[in-house]
Amino acid sequence: MPVNLPLPVAEQLHPVAGVALGVASAGIRKAGRKDVLLVRLAEGSKVAGVFTQNAFCAAPVQICRQHLSATQEMRAWLVNTGCANAGTGAIGLQNAIASTVSVGKALGIPANQVLPFSTGVILEHLPMDKLQAGIFSAATHLGQANWLDAAYAIMTTDTQPKAASTQIQIRGKTITITGISKGAGMIRPNMATMLGFVATDAGVDSALLSQLAKDAADESFNAITIDGDTSTNDSFVIAATHQSGIRFDTPTDPDWPVFRDAMIGVCRLLAQAIVRDGEGATKFITIRVRGAASKAEAKQIGYAIGHSPLVKTAFFASDPNLGRILAAIGYSGVAGLDVDKIRVFLDDVLVAEQGGRAAAYTEADGQRVMQQSEITITIDLARGDKEGVVYTCDLSHDYVSINADYRS
Amino acid sequence: MPVNLPLPVAEQLHPVAGVALGVASAGIRKAGRKDVLLVRLAEGSKVAGVFTQNAFCAAPVQICRQHLSATQEMRAWLVNTGCANAGTGAIGLQNAIASTVSVGKALGIPANQVLPFSTGVILEHLPMDKLQAGIFSAATHLGQANWLDAAYAIMTTDTQPKAASTQIQIRGKTITITGISKGAGMIRPNMATMLGFVATDAGVDSALLSQLAKDAADESFNAITIDGDTSTNDSFVIAATHQSGIRFDTPTDPDWPVFRDAMIGVCRLLAQAIVRDGEGATKFITIRVRGAASKAEAKQIGYAIGHSPLVKTAFFASDPNLGRILAAIGYSGVAGLDVDKIRVFLDDVLVAEQGGRAAAYTEADGQRVMQQSEITITIDLARGDKEGVVYTCDLSHDYVSINADYRS
Repeated sequence: MPVNLPLPVAEQLHPVAGVALGVASAGIRKAGRKDVLLVRLAEGSKVAGVFTQNAFCAAPVQICRQHLSATQEMRAWLVNTGCANAGTGAIGLQNAIASTVSVGKALGIPANQVLPFSTGVILEHLPMDKLQAGIFSAATHLGQANWLDAAYAIMTTDTQPKAASTQIQIRGKTITITGISKGAGMIRPNMATMLGFVATDAGVDSALLSQLAKDAADESFNAITIDGDTSTNDSFVIAATHQSGIRFDTPTDPDWPVFRDAMIGVCRLLAQAIVRDGEGATKFITIRVRGAASKAEAKQIGYAIGHSPLVKTAFFASDPNLGRILAAIGYSGVAGLDVDKIRVFLDDVLVAEQGGRAAAYTEADGQRVMQQSEITITIDLARGDKEGVVYTCDLSHDYVSINADYRS
Repeated sequence: MPVNLPLPVAEQLHPVAGVALGVASAGIRKAGRKDVLLVRLAEGSKVAGVFTQNAFCAAPVQICRQHLSATQEMRAWLVNTGCANAGTGAIGLQNAIASTVSVGKALGIPANQVLPFSTGVILEHLPMDKLQAGIFSAATHLGQANWLDAAYAIMTTDTQPKAASTQIQIRGKTITITGISKGAGMIRPNMATMLGFVATDAGVDSALLSQLAKDAADESFNAITIDGDTSTNDSFVIAATHQSGIRFDTPTDPDWPVFRDAMIGVCRLLAQAIVRDGEGATKFITIRVRGAASKAEAKQIGYAIGHSPLVKTAFFASDPNLGRILAAIGYSGVAGLDVDKIRVFLDDVLVAEQGGRAAAYTEADGQRVMQQSEITITIDLARGDKEGVVYTCDLSHDYVSINADYRS
């Protein structure tokens, strides 16, 4: 059961001018489920993205990087589930390229303006016949799918689709931002998550769009962890179709912060949705580390807590066994911590200070907060004014069941 | 159920001349179980140790460091379970010091020649009245306990006691090495584990003993992980009582390698015993990374694999979902890996090479190895001649149950 994650409503996911969606059932891993998504972008669209830092990065990630290094002017995204096309060597690269060629033929566009994305089992090859049939089917039905259909088509162990959408008014015109994401395990994105797709009908300068993709990832997909496992396929891309008539050319544009905040807001919802639907998750936990000397050290401590199986099982049990949080701070690897100055809060309850349990803390207070499905841990390091936030979930029996059975 | 970990037999744990053991039931957390161990060392004994690098290190660890910085000539170890005396601030330090004073009084030795060790729940204070009664009881019965009793007295979530012992012949005399360890969760020692105690009746030069403690930890307790959580209390100490008549003053002593290997062998057995009895463990996994540019990078990759919840759940399920191993290698953070050269073996089965699945690999071969209770993963990085080994276990439902219930 996802944690406080309402099912997206199709009508609330605004279409983005310049974006046409098509889905298909290619039977890549399981028959009868939608497993191919094709996204056509209007001519003039620009795309920026960030990708996994995993050295064993998947073939489609390598092709995305290659294509984007030549041009930001992309015309299509192709997504398949069921097979990650990772750990597949030279054949995997050939298959990823062949899939972009198929999309190019189906849509009448150059193959190097197609970005491929895959998610699923590692170490297996794409069934190319099935995938190509799926591509042509999705192309035939292009424009008939909505964003909710698209969100369904990219799910793997996700228990529900993830989508977010917003509209803002700028200079008398409406700008739409809509996106989808997927992922529930192997989630500790390092530069992006597997997978996030966001489109807007604003126009954005190339360099500005690249920076926006990085900044948005940093505040969203790069701030979540479920199990600490950085995927081979993490990919997050933004398309700006420029169909709204509004274009941003410089960060000094007075309307840019409004658009930037709206974009980051959508990305944060999509990223949090992944955590809320984390494998076996029963609690959504925000770890806010403030008073840090740098944002990097704040996030380092946040991830140490967010990855600790002991912390995560204590949250699963609603057990305020909070010494485990102190232990994780202590082994985070951040040098020169003055543990006597660190304060730890569970929501508004001061748990620890001066190297030990806070005088006023009672087990009952801790217990009350631990029962909730949404909990914020705040750590004040008292050595600076920087802050970092990490979102995570608890570790339950279902996580073990899901991952012990994933391929079965 | 521990993985291939036979119960130690009291008769096979050789007493160490110069070491007297006493245990007591102090009722620190639960009534009726042995929870205090007192070890008296003969005059002239030397002790060296390594301790947790956790910034929130426990009060007893701080006192051990302080005492050992003044002298290696120690006369007693005091161990309690049930309360870690970590995250306890100034009061915790006072309590740790008071416990060494009590031991000093009971044994007629200076308090600064006593090393205190605690294990159990973090953020709670030691019940000093109970502990002091336990100390005097253990002192009264000193010499009546054997090493198996001692191993029982330091258990927490351990399902069985851990002990190892060996004897070697040097220059016509017998040298004994006997030790005990404990720990089953919060196990990713960084410089030592919680807890390892080894004694020998050899005499060893001070600097040589310090180096031996570091080297032995590096090959044993610093090569294991259960859940990646570095404890606040990790401590590993060696006592050399010099009662055997044999003394080592320099590493160039021709007999030193024999003694050193025997010592490391005992420590490795004790460390592996902790993994075999890891919380919820059903498999014992050796991760051997060879062909590395440095031992550090080999262990870094070993730990990435050993900490991956996805790898660990796959082993629990006996599912050769080996792409997860590739993913962990890829996100280990080791720079400049050439994934096309890396080879991955499951026991003697070549699983992956040239960035993908090995041509001759069959699922049946992988399945056969995964069914075993002892499995070796070998990674050949093909970029150097260094090697590192990490020992770990799988992640099962019982791990979640044990840690969701630990304080209940």
